[in-house]
Amino acid sequence: MSREVISHTDGHVYEFAPEMEPVYEAADGESLTIETIDSLNGEIQSDDDLLDAIPEEVNAATGPIAVEGASPGDVLAVKIEDVRVAEDRGRVLTAPGFGLLQDDPGIEHPATRITEVDGEGDGSDGAGSGSDGAGGGSDGAGGGSDGIGGGDRIEFEGIDVPIDPVIGTIGVATPDEAISTLTPDDHGGNLDTTDMTAGTTAYFPVFQAGAMLAMGDSKAAMADGEMCGTGAEIATEIDVTLSVIEEPEVPLDRPLVDTGDAVKTVASAETMAEAVEIANRDIVRLLARDHGLSRTEAYLFSSLVGGLEISQVVDPQVTARNAVPSEYLSVPF
Amino acid sequence: MSREVISHTDGHVYEFAPEMEPVYEAADGESLTIETIDSLNGEIQSDDDLLDAIPEEVNAATGPIAVEGASPGDVLAVKIEDVRVAEDRGRVLTAPGFGLLQDDPGIEHPATRITEVDGEGDGSDGAGSGSDGAGGGSDGAGGGSDGIGGGDRIEFEGIDVPIDPVIGTIGVATPDEAISTLTPDDHGGNLDTTDMTAGTTAYFPVFQAGAMLAMGDSKAAMADGEMCGTGAEIATEIDVTLSVIEEPEVPLDRPLVDTGDAVKTVASAETMAEAVEIANRDIVRLLARDHGLSRTEAYLFSSLVGGLEISQVVDPQVTARNAVPSEYLSVPF
Repeated sequence: MSREVISHTDGHVYEFAPEMEPVYEAADGESLTIETIDSLNGEIQSDDDLLDAIPEEVNAATGPIAVEGASPGDVLAVKIEDVRVAEDRGRVLTAPGFGLLQDDPGIEHPATRITEVDGEGDGSDGAGSGSDGAGGGSDGAGGGSDGIGGGDRIEFEGIDVPIDPVIGTIGVATPDEAISTLTPDDHGGNLDTTDMTAGTTAYFPVFQAGAMLAMGDSKAAMADGEMCGTGAEIATEIDVTLSVIEEPEVPLDRPLVDTGDAVKTVASAETMAEAVEIANRDIVRLLARDHGLSRTEAYLFSSLVGGLEISQVVDPQVTARNAVPSEYLSVPF
Repeated sequence: MSREVISHTDGHVYEFAPEMEPVYEAADGESLTIETIDSLNGEIQSDDDLLDAIPEEVNAATGPIAVEGASPGDVLAVKIEDVRVAEDRGRVLTAPGFGLLQDDPGIEHPATRITEVDGEGDGSDGAGSGSDGAGGGSDGAGGGSDGIGGGDRIEFEGIDVPIDPVIGTIGVATPDEAISTLTPDDHGGNLDTTDMTAGTTAYFPVFQAGAMLAMGDSKAAMADGEMCGTGAEIATEIDVTLSVIEEPEVPLDRPLVDTGDAVKTVASAETMAEAVEIANRDIVRLLARDHGLSRTEAYLFSSLVGGLEISQVVDPQVTARNAVPSEYLSVPF
């Protein structure tokens, strides 16, 4: 069957809530293309466009999409097949009161730099400086986008950076309160996690009938940490296949990703100390089950392979992961 | 010239201090082999050996080694050429009041598991289950040790884990107060950083004449985070070459590592929020200098490539890194 396209113009949200009105109802197992606008709704188009404050409405998430048969207690699997940049530029920026070094007097807030997509058209524009080598330093399947118009890199002040897209905000309807698309939590949301890219399957708990998936806030490239508060924010087209895992053997309390190379628990909390503790506790449970270990043994083992990773340190809650290489852990669904 | 061997039996310390008495004086550019005992001084040899508390004297660091010509304000480059495990077992353990999940009632404190080194002797003992594939999930040059007696993996409760050694404690004389080998700080110390392995060059600020390098507390394998408080603690032989960078162009305030794949600032602080802020501030300075960017631009760029990483979350201060792929940053020495 032909792949349905769901655009932000069909519907988008600025919060994940218990009750959400779907813009589309997908069959279990359906493949879709989801079009997202950049996190700032296209309002930043040049270096002179400055963000004086984080807008009330930010990180527009295309959707929500109801998935047939998804019921509370189930797990929604989102197989991310491709993420393509869908405009000729991204933007990376600071805003007052936001970002890791927001109090540094030597750093301007606000400040904007446009990151143009290079290598457009016939792919022979020759503007690049030849540094389109390895990816952005994060592990995982990566999955380099083919890119709209053949663009495979962005340029930051003359420096080429390979396009390695990240879906910044992705999540489902919440259990009991509305949560802004600026904030990550157990439903997902603004996780700003570099693993949310092509090649990864992301698993979310289903809190409400239909799950109500929405996503947006993509970046052409982003560092683990998202230190200045943004990556290279950009519009994207995202190919996904959605599947419902009914009555999973293992309950899922918050997002989990399988990058192909590693399985990672993803936890958000007020402090990094809390987030890594939750992420570790979740991975200990999975390791214990997978290997028939006691909790104590699983904890000891978690201290030998993979480890703790930082997703982002700048949102209203921070996000961490506990990664275990795939050879040591299978997704239990 | 033949390579001098400095053993923990020649001398070791349990604190880094402003005044330290060298056990050996190395020439600038000299290559050495440094023998280290495990962090618990060989006292844990079976699963029945439990650690009721972290000992007063822990992480014995072989040395200190004075390096000829090193003066305050210089940089000491430690090229780590090889790290070989030097005994037939490691040990991973919990102790009361220590570790990320120390308050979890479902996890035993204390608990010990011996991790035997497999594949000894002729390398054909066949005990392995075939999972000696990819490394421990951290990036970087890695550099898998040849291992004493051919051992290339440890076994945890029947699960094979490739040996990927880490020097847990490595540092130099401090500027003005004595710091236990349990604590990391700007002089290095108990950094518990997976990048401290073969293939990495580590750079330390020189605070005192001779630098006074010491190291120990190696692990056969360790997860980023060192969640339970240890990796697979083990004795090692470490090949290094020591060089003094006099009057460096860029001052170095705390450790920096070059893994071959990435340059990473390393920062320790009371909280992860503070540690990542310091690590980011340091990388911003290096990026600005390397690319002729303003601080603002360097900060924006830091949010696009590489990113924040966790070294450990369990010591009296926690340790974080900010990694930038080598194609985007050169070590300024």
